[in-house]
Amino acid sequence: MGNATQDIENLIELMAKLPGLGPRSARRAVLHMIKKRALIMTPLADVLSEVAVTARECLNCGNVGTSDICDICEADKRATGELCVVEDVADLWAMERAGGFKGRYHVLGGTLSALDAVGPDDLQIPKLRDRVAAEGITEVILALNATVDGQTTAHYIADELEGSGVTVTTLAQGVPIGGELDYLDDGTISAALKARKSF
Amino acid sequence: MGNATQDIENLIELMAKLPGLGPRSARRAVLHMIKKRALIMTPLADVLSEVAVTARECLNCGNVGTSDICDICEADKRATGELCVVEDVADLWAMERAGGFKGRYHVLGGTLSALDAVGPDDLQIPKLRDRVAAEGITEVILALNATVDGQTTAHYIADELEGSGVTVTTLAQGVPIGGELDYLDDGTISAALKARKSF
Ligand SMILES: [Zn+2]
Ligand SMILES: [Zn+2]
Repeated sequence: MGNATQDIENLIELMAKLPGLGPRSARRAVLHMIKKRALIMTPLADVLSEVAVTARECLNCGNVGTSDICDICEADKRATGELCVVEDVADLWAMERAGGFKGRYHVLGGTLSALDAVGPDDLQIPKLRDRVAAEGITEVILALNATVDGQTTAHYIADELEGSGVTVTTLAQGVPIGGELDYLDDGTISAALKARKSF
Repeated sequence: MGNATQDIENLIELMAKLPGLGPRSARRAVLHMIKKRALIMTPLADVLSEVAVTARECLNCGNVGTSDICDICEADKRATGELCVVEDVADLWAMERAGGFKGRYHVLGGTLSALDAVGPDDLQIPKLRDRVAAEGITEVILALNATVDGQTTAHYIADELEGSGVTVTTLAQGVPIGGELDYLDDGTISAALKARKSF
């Protein structure tokens, strides 16, 4: 970082911790911000300070927003009886961008993983059972990534919900093998949702 | 962005304007920050607010720091009579990381470009002449990128300085054709500097 003073060095180090940025792109980003101070840096500082205080996870579904219960959980019209289970918030946002789903979400916070010793109680699976009962859910849509861990998790949840009277579906073929939702174009997700099949 | 509230959407949009980040990586970065609030988001907001106020370009050389005259220009021991000319601040920082150069810098702010209609007066070339005279410079090292525009600019500056009594050198072969300084490993830059030759 050469002679950049301590604050600028700290800024570069923090930026380099973000996914997708390394030290070099962090330096470039910081120089770009300084050049575009009024357009980028000052507004970014302001909104970041704001969000650092206000951001919270929805106590009900795990979505990220700025209130204890997110807009989707608050909206009466989204109480359709359909509950879409996703691995993380980025996937929830990808589903929303794709459009077509009118119900609510449940963010697991990951997938089961023997390798990483992630069990059902490390995820929001117990809470999923509670919500299915409490919210009058009729269909659970498993929108998990088409990875080994994602599909293991889907099977586990389907087994767990057996006998609860709820229909369990999964996104249709169309999600490529090994594909992650957040990388897909909106049309693919949307088509896979429409063609969803019984699990 | 789904139902992320306005602040979070604004944050994602601003992050997506940084070089190296698109909308998708900006969303991932924002979710990561929110998850690592205490470790990343709050410190980042604080230091960004600080730097947005304090960052400035050195009035002498164009380096970015937090004072009107940067540490390198302030340091007496760097008044070696050597002046290293670079295209931008990232290149200056790359030279400093490489180590081995004990003099001062001059940031041009770009290269001459017929295509983009960048002429000498759009760059810090007039100021370079002034500094050479005022600061008792004996050697100007042209550390410009090995691109067509970089080399055109190097030739232009060498012509300009002819007759001024200053030695003009350039980084040795070792910088790959088409290569940009900020992409090179420190050793390559360092070796090229040591083997610099008369221009
Ligand atoms: Zn919610
Ligand atoms: Zn300076």
